[in-house]
Amino acid sequence: SLKLREVASMYFTAVAVLMVILVVALQGSLPRGNDFPYKVPLDPQGLLELSWNVSYPQQALHFQLLVREPRAGLLFGMSDRGEFENADLAVLWSDGRSSYFGDAWSDAKGQLHLDSQQDYQLLGARKAPEGLYLLFRRAFSTCDPKDYLIEDGTVHLIYGILEKPVPSLQAINVSALPRGLQRVQLLKPNISIPELPRDMETMEITAPGVVIPSQETTYWCYMAELPDGFPKHHIIKYEAVITAGNEALVHHMEVFQCAAEFDSFPHYSGPCDSKMKPERLNYCRHVLAAWAMGAQAFYYPEEAGLAFGGPGSSRYLRLEVHYHNPLVIKGRRDSSGIRLYYTARLRPHDAGIMELGLVYSPVMAIPPGQHSFTLTGYCTDKCTQLALPAAGIRIFASQLHTHLAGRKVVTVLARAGREQQVVNADGHYSPHFQEIRMLKEVVAVFPGDELITTCTYNTEDRSRATVGGFGIMEEMCVNYVHYYPQTQLELCKSAVDPGYLHRYFNLVNRFNDEEVCMCPQVSIPQQFYSVPWNSFNREVLSSLYAFAPISVHCNESSAVRFPVGTAPSPLPS
Amino acid sequence: SLKLREVASMYFTAVAVLMVILVVALQGSLPRGNDFPYKVPLDPQGLLELSWNVSYPQQALHFQLLVREPRAGLLFGMSDRGEFENADLAVLWSDGRSSYFGDAWSDAKGQLHLDSQQDYQLLGARKAPEGLYLLFRRAFSTCDPKDYLIEDGTVHLIYGILEKPVPSLQAINVSALPRGLQRVQLLKPNISIPELPRDMETMEITAPGVVIPSQETTYWCYMAELPDGFPKHHIIKYEAVITAGNEALVHHMEVFQCAAEFDSFPHYSGPCDSKMKPERLNYCRHVLAAWAMGAQAFYYPEEAGLAFGGPGSSRYLRLEVHYHNPLVIKGRRDSSGIRLYYTARLRPHDAGIMELGLVYSPVMAIPPGQHSFTLTGYCTDKCTQLALPAAGIRIFASQLHTHLAGRKVVTVLARAGREQQVVNADGHYSPHFQEIRMLKEVVAVFPGDELITTCTYNTEDRSRATVGGFGIMEEMCVNYVHYYPQTQLELCKSAVDPGYLHRYFNLVNRFNDEEVCMCPQVSIPQQFYSVPWNSFNREVLSSLYAFAPISVHCNESSAVRFPVGTAPSPLPS
Repeated sequence: SLKLREVASMYFTAVAVLMVILVVALQGSLPRGNDFPYKVPLDPQGLLELSWNVSYPQQALHFQLLVREPRAGLLFGMSDRGEFENADLAVLWSDGRSSYFGDAWSDAKGQLHLDSQQDYQLLGARKAPEGLYLLFRRAFSTCDPKDYLIEDGTVHLIYGILEKPVPSLQAINVSALPRGLQRVQLLKPNISIPELPRDMETMEITAPGVVIPSQETTYWCYMAELPDGFPKHHIIKYEAVITAGNEALVHHMEVFQCAAEFDSFPHYSGPCDSKMKPERLNYCRHVLAAWAMGAQAFYYPEEAGLAFGGPGSSRYLRLEVHYHNPLVIKGRRDSSGIRLYYTARLRPHDAGIMELGLVYSPVMAIPPGQHSFTLTGYCTDKCTQLALPAAGIRIFASQLHTHLAGRKVVTVLARAGREQQVVNADGHYSPHFQEIRMLKEVVAVFPGDELITTCTYNTEDRSRATVGGFGIMEEMCVNYVHYYPQTQLELCKSAVDPGYLHRYFNLVNRFNDEEVCMCPQVSIPQQFYSVPWNSFNREVLSSLYAFAPISVHCNESSAVRFPVGTAPSPLPS
Repeated sequence: SLKLREVASMYFTAVAVLMVILVVALQGSLPRGNDFPYKVPLDPQGLLELSWNVSYPQQALHFQLLVREPRAGLLFGMSDRGEFENADLAVLWSDGRSSYFGDAWSDAKGQLHLDSQQDYQLLGARKAPEGLYLLFRRAFSTCDPKDYLIEDGTVHLIYGILEKPVPSLQAINVSALPRGLQRVQLLKPNISIPELPRDMETMEITAPGVVIPSQETTYWCYMAELPDGFPKHHIIKYEAVITAGNEALVHHMEVFQCAAEFDSFPHYSGPCDSKMKPERLNYCRHVLAAWAMGAQAFYYPEEAGLAFGGPGSSRYLRLEVHYHNPLVIKGRRDSSGIRLYYTARLRPHDAGIMELGLVYSPVMAIPPGQHSFTLTGYCTDKCTQLALPAAGIRIFASQLHTHLAGRKVVTVLARAGREQQVVNADGHYSPHFQEIRMLKEVVAVFPGDELITTCTYNTEDRSRATVGGFGIMEEMCVNYVHYYPQTQLELCKSAVDPGYLHRYFNLVNRFNDEEVCMCPQVSIPQQFYSVPWNSFNREVLSSLYAFAPISVHCNESSAVRFPVGTAPSPLPS
């Protein structure tokens, strides 16, 4: 009773070429080409290019997939973290005579099966000089348990190429195909673009003539400089400038402003991890702009802009470009970067960035072998009471941040002990895809509100505890929120009270009849490393974090703490 | 865009009478009257009578609701535990001119709203001399988040009577209506009825001429006696015998066999809690048969029967009838009871009953104020290895049992540390509805298998810990499984190792800076009562139960333990 939609009759030669002639079962009206505002290459060669639009009233997406060199078929779909097993797939395949399109799923072994309910709706297929266009629609949420639920935040898109015709869909096994994954934010916020002033100027921060190194991953560092005496301006928009042809290689880019306390910074253009890189570049860490593949232009709200230039602000900027070159292409030249749009007519408010989540401290740790262990950081009512203006602040964008074990991040706003609103949530968060995201709705935060950030970690591949810290094998739980008007509060975070952690180590010691060295000269990481990680010790640690008082960090820009007191605060309920 | 189905034009007089003349939108074929094998009265007067059938291939139920005295409309539906808020409802209502039928839901305040998706499908409405028949269909699972998911085990059916026409569905608030609840097992197992022998005899164990007391709840006890010299027989079937007209009053009934060590028992017919009840009746506790409202005849599998009569078995039986008389009807006479079908030609195997779950011990406790706290009892591989025959046993029926805080019970079969099969599960378990249920599938248990029983409790209305024990305010977690061939193993249960519980009390003591009296003369319940129940102490207790070794009770009929050893067993994984 499964209905296969025949897309086309197939013209089959020794070299399998897919020719789509006829389109059957058109459903709904066909969006035009310019109706797809978002675009991302799926594969490193850019042979598959996905464009899409989002209809919130319809709760559905329209996809346009351009296949530049069509073969016997292809798979496109989504899965929790980009895995090819138990994935939700739209499949175009040919049996050598005809081509078919269907909504399918892959089982735990990678074998395909047709869904009992067809939720990828084929709207059209068109052959053009540049390749084959496939047009299809998908609701955010279907009622098929085999389907992926499309949510806010990161979506792991996967694709596979069918090189030869197959007798049937069931004959396809994803594990045997050329394939790949691309992370995107599918559900872009539906925000109206603020009016831009006529006197707006632009500045391109690009690293000219970089020869992309022939290695999978390169972080390229380039120093730029504002004109001498450049007065205070407001950045009101920025976007990526990608050298044509390199769309699939430029993975993400950031522009950092350097520290104002140094009068000058050396020029540099080279890999960020090079021994030749001047040490001082490490003092260029204040994010001005960040872009990742698939992201659109970033707009500041009409009332605010990001200040740069003028006294008390460094003239030096550092551009960092992450090249992702898995095919190890050699000798490719690139001059990509970021274009800043700015104005001298300052908007009413400066925008600011505030750091929410957990303090970078080893007291917050994740046991090894955990599928999903959560840690929570609090920006408490006491801190917002002291540090925020009576009229509150408006959060309009957010960048989530963890290290390699991070799997989910969410920040919620609570008022009077009750959850009011999700500030930003990513249930498929990847540390490899850290965009600054404009929020669907601006979030107003008032004195006395709480901002609670929870991160979920996976440590299944680790054999010892992962403690909080700066190292790549240590963890963070951070949400950089972009807001206005700027305040003195730069950091509003927490960690468990160290005295209670000490009680935990004592308890583990006594309960398990084993020695966790309590000698005062042993560091907290060392104590965590010596815990015998059975289910009891894991769960008690989790209960401790949910129960014990916290110490609150409520810091001004100058790293001076707001006077919230030194006694640990009881945990917000 | 909501589609209301007009059921009928309404003939409206001073006394609102619903006249169904016309049926619109018939969907599917109409099941005939004899297609509804299951029947239950919904209200204590029997004015609403529900019949139904189950189609496993269609994964759907057909309901026939007889309304004996139709008014302006009625509500019928389901909810987690019989509450009227956030319930899933089929509603028949009249605005004074027309009648309507729709799938609706009640919000947290009891107000009705039409579902966006209509999943109660009206198939027909028919006026007959005895009342109005409504026929409708409902899939077990719909994709509407406002709908109830129909699962195995108890379903809490709710109803309400609309006495006056309403302008619209939204004008209905459930809290203002005459209403009630009935618990049934909707998804009856689809088992084929074993062939019954021609020489089968019957015996009715009924309490003749009881005047049902004019109080809400009565347990009536009646002693019956088998003929002198009655040889061993096999009970192969039993069913309820309900005095006509009392279908809504007889809530449940059980037949117990008395202890063989007493030669005689006094005759008695009266309330079970009467001071006049002879003490010795407390020795009649071995369940022979149990029936609850809505239950059908109970059949033993072809290969087995329940032995009664003959040497070593008491001639005395105790019938217990629970009358539920919320309207406090006076002077109603009743002679209900249970009809046993038995045969002298013994079947190949005697059936037995085994008790799985937790030992009745205070070491297993539930903190107060818990929405859902779980406790787990193990019938371990060691015990089944020693006590079961090599060919295994077959479990064919199960009766779940807890005291008042019980909310869910599930038993799973595990083999080599992996879950194989659910033996019986009730996610909406109620201590007020303890049927013996025939299993959908007979479960084979072999030496070395484990049977793991988990109970979920709600103690939100309690201010001190609930410990395990026999008292009505203490708790149990038991699954009485009915199986064949009978073995010596009567009880296969566990409890946490008391030494580890002692460590828990020590830990609570030290961590919380409070005194939990550890003096040896203080009982375990007293220690539990003195724990300060914060989230940490609650969660650590839960972690302890999941982690600590257990002591295993693996008892023969004679209450002699099988020699599984006295050291606590490590917890099965």
